[in-house]
Amino acid sequence: MITSRDNTQLKQIHKLRRKRERDALGLFVADGEDLVAAAEAAGWEPEILLRAGEDVEPELLDRVSVLGSGTRVIGVYAQRWSEPRGALCVYLEGVADPGNVGTVLRAAHALADGPVVLGPGCADPFGPKSVRASMGSLFARPPARAELGRLGAAKLALDGAAEGTLAAAAAGLRAPVVLCVGGERDGLAPETLAAADAVARIPQRPDGPDSLNAAVAAAIGLYELGHRMAADA
Amino acid sequence: MITSRDNTQLKQIHKLRRKRERDALGLFVADGEDLVAAAEAAGWEPEILLRAGEDVEPELLDRVSVLGSGTRVIGVYAQRWSEPRGALCVYLEGVADPGNVGTVLRAAHALADGPVVLGPGCADPFGPKSVRASMGSLFARPPARAELGRLGAAKLALDGAAEGTLAAAAAGLRAPVVLCVGGERDGLAPETLAAADAVARIPQRPDGPDSLNAAVAAAIGLYELGHRMAADA
Repeated sequence: MITSRDNTQLKQIHKLRRKRERDALGLFVADGEDLVAAAEAAGWEPEILLRAGEDVEPELLDRVSVLGSGTRVIGVYAQRWSEPRGALCVYLEGVADPGNVGTVLRAAHALADGPVVLGPGCADPFGPKSVRASMGSLFARPPARAELGRLGAAKLALDGAAEGTLAAAAAGLRAPVVLCVGGERDGLAPETLAAADAVARIPQRPDGPDSLNAAVAAAIGLYELGHRMAADA
Repeated sequence: MITSRDNTQLKQIHKLRRKRERDALGLFVADGEDLVAAAEAAGWEPEILLRAGEDVEPELLDRVSVLGSGTRVIGVYAQRWSEPRGALCVYLEGVADPGNVGTVLRAAHALADGPVVLGPGCADPFGPKSVRASMGSLFARPPARAELGRLGAAKLALDGAAEGTLAAAAAGLRAPVVLCVGGERDGLAPETLAAADAVARIPQRPDGPDSLNAAVAAAIGLYELGHRMAADA
């Protein structure tokens, strides 16, 4: 039973809040019973596993938890990355909000067969907010890293200023398809739009907001594409 | 120029982080230039407006800001509620995460003509995380409060265990429609499902997660319904 806050494992868990530490060690933290159960269900072995009252005094676990008081378990895992594959996947560029990255990990796990491919400018998927928002989908379907040009699939880019609609563009594409979604303020880079096989918008009300949340846009795109591809099959 | 942290307005802003205080006074806080600009664009007059370096010392404004250091402006506004209306709106029940409530406010502003109707168990839409996630849509389209039975529209309830799909159900409904979405763990109450004109699921992969994020589910539902209703028109 760990009874000192100077314990090496506790200090390690605390340090892994920092991206530099995660990158250097290739590790990350899953905080709470739901996430640790998701890791176990997906067959991931923890590098460290600390249960409150069994392995560590509860107050000491609370101190290093991002959830705060009452945390029952924390696991530390080695980062894993997928290879891009599948009939449908999503490519993110400039999605800097970690909650959005995690929400896309979860939505893509529900709506597509391929991983989330992270391009430049995205938040670290292994940071605490992303891991939490993924609700365990990070373990079931780890993200991929790749340049867009390396993906051998038809590219459908979402852009609020495009003429064509998502539904029309989706109807004209055959699997494999990669849906490209940019950050909320800047959207996709001009090179990404130029490289796309189709550029389309999600129809929005003229009196609506300037943009959709990036995770919402990605989920709608995956829904429409999955739907269309199921109708083709 | 406010130079003391004991200033009444600063203390008021800090207190408004608490729901009890917001409920008692019918006020809420918008933190940062983007939100204050959205309020102004929508014609809302602030009860209090403090600009760093003009009305208040910057360090004192930072102390009461939920954004932390570098906040340029904070506005305090009177809460407003909409009446339920429109050809398409969304009803939330048990959506306890304020970020999700705010994300739905933004998505509905983009995808529907009616307000977000908040049923029992939802997070306060005027809390800081919801206001921030709404990205100003809270001002353009304030939420409504109503019992589901009072809404004179066809009710389409999302339920992961339903047999029929969202697309099939949407095709069978005519406007006005209210999309009903429950919290992620418990879903909609049995009474709500029983009162619905149609119950449908968003098709998901069998190897996917247990559920979709509530805001993602609401956005996909609004997208499909808006699409379908545009095709009818």
